Amino acid sequence: MHAYFLRPGDPNVPILYEVDRIRDGRSFTTRRVVAVQHGKAIFNLSASFHTDDHGLEHQMAMPDVPEPSTLPPLQQLFGWTDRPEAQWHHPFDVRHIEPGPRQLRRDRTGLKPIQRVWFRTDGHLPDDFLVHACVVAYASDLWLLDTAALPHPVNFDDPTFMAASLDHAMWFHRPFRADEWLLYDQESPIAHGGRALVSGRIFTEDGRLVVSVVQEGLTRLLTAPRGNQARAAQAATT
Amino acid sequence: MHAYFLRPGDPNVPILYEVDRIRDGRSFTTRRVVAVQHGKAIFNLSASFHTDDHGLEHQMAMPDVPEPSTLPPLQQLFGWTDRPEAQWHHPFDVRHIEPGPRQLRRDRTGLKPIQRVWFRTDGHLPDDFLVHACVVAYASDLWLLDTAALPHPVNFDDPTFMAASLDHAMWFHRPFRADEWLLYDQESPIAHGGRALVSGRIFTEDGRLVVSVVQEGLTRLLTAPRGNQARAAQAATT
Repeated sequence: MHAYFLRPGDPNVPILYEVDRIRDGRSFTTRRVVAVQHGKAIFNLSASFHTDDHGLEHQMAMPDVPEPSTLPPLQQLFGWTDRPEAQWHHPFDVRHIEPGPRQLRRDRTGLKPIQRVWFRTDGHLPDDFLVHACVVAYASDLWLLDTAALPHPVNFDDPTFMAASLDHAMWFHRPFRADEWLLYDQESPIAHGGRALVSGRIFTEDGRLVVSVVQEGLTRLLTAPRGNQARAAQAATT
Repeated sequence: MHAYFLRPGDPNVPILYEVDRIRDGRSFTTRRVVAVQHGKAIFNLSASFHTDDHGLEHQMAMPDVPEPSTLPPLQQLFGWTDRPEAQWHHPFDVRHIEPGPRQLRRDRTGLKPIQRVWFRTDGHLPDDFLVHACVVAYASDLWLLDTAALPHPVNFDDPTFMAASLDHAMWFHRPFRADEWLLYDQESPIAHGGRALVSGRIFTEDGRLVVSVVQEGLTRLLTAPRGNQARAAQAATT
């Protein structure tokens, strides 16, 4: 699945999805989708679907990390603060592995652009795999750009810092359940020229690699605070 | 840039490119392209273009590898064989780093799905960066699937092995020249269910990361040799 975020969405009006059934094959089927609001494309996506098949078999090892049950939940980490982040990821039980959430680290000296979290939905999901794939597609966007910001003295609400997801690509390798623990191993190899790349790998608790993710994000530093220019900057950005 | 290969191309007829100017922004512009032959889509692509910008700066280190001048050219490696591979990459000067080209390794026991090559064009290119970007887009597809096959006892001409590029994604981080040495560091994190994922990072000789690449490829093992069934299998595959 490959997608671009083109324009800001409007939560107050419906989204029209235009689907191009570009290819129906015997073992591969491909779709192109454009999401439209107010007559303009806000998002476009291409997706390829593959039947079960047989071939070469290998897999990289899962990183050696603490088990999720040994790590504090997000609510406990943020419990003593009034920051809104504690509620952001409410549908998920999230367990951060060192160095922990960016928002709780004032000193980022020496931090690498690497972030590992365990996550699962707070409740049980039906057995339909499509539900689990959609839930993980949603979750896969939550922490990626955070990873690129980890080594840097910026916050997402800084008036001179603009961040946004630009594209999003996912490869689903195997079935999995989103209501069982998944390890999301994220790393940003580069940030340059106002954009950062972040890649992620999602493993089941027993070490099977189930999804790979790559996202490029806007990580722009403004020479002047956004303030009154926020709208103009937003238009120039997205 | 995100693309899917949908159907086999026909080198005997022109390709019609249908371009959708989906978004013209101030700092980002996006295009969707479908390549058509015989009235059917053979390839589709989305590409996003970004003006020069300023933001967070970090980069992973280039792997520690031998300099290209210390490694034998491909022609020398294949010179004593009559295999056609020696001519395949003719427009490029290619220097393989250990373990060397897959075709020269009969015993692949213990090989990892990791491949590193230096490459540059055989001659000088004009200064237009678009030429250099296009040349590297072409070259970036040459060795990726080889990387996934490295640990396995298969060859691309085996009648029971079917391999093909399924998608191709590239992120251009910085300008570079394709007629100067570039290190292509490739790794396949997974092969499963008839598909393999391979990621690549392209560095200049002085260690700047300039391009990131991800490709998924078909790596299907057939239960019966292709032989007479080649056409049917091809239709089922692509």
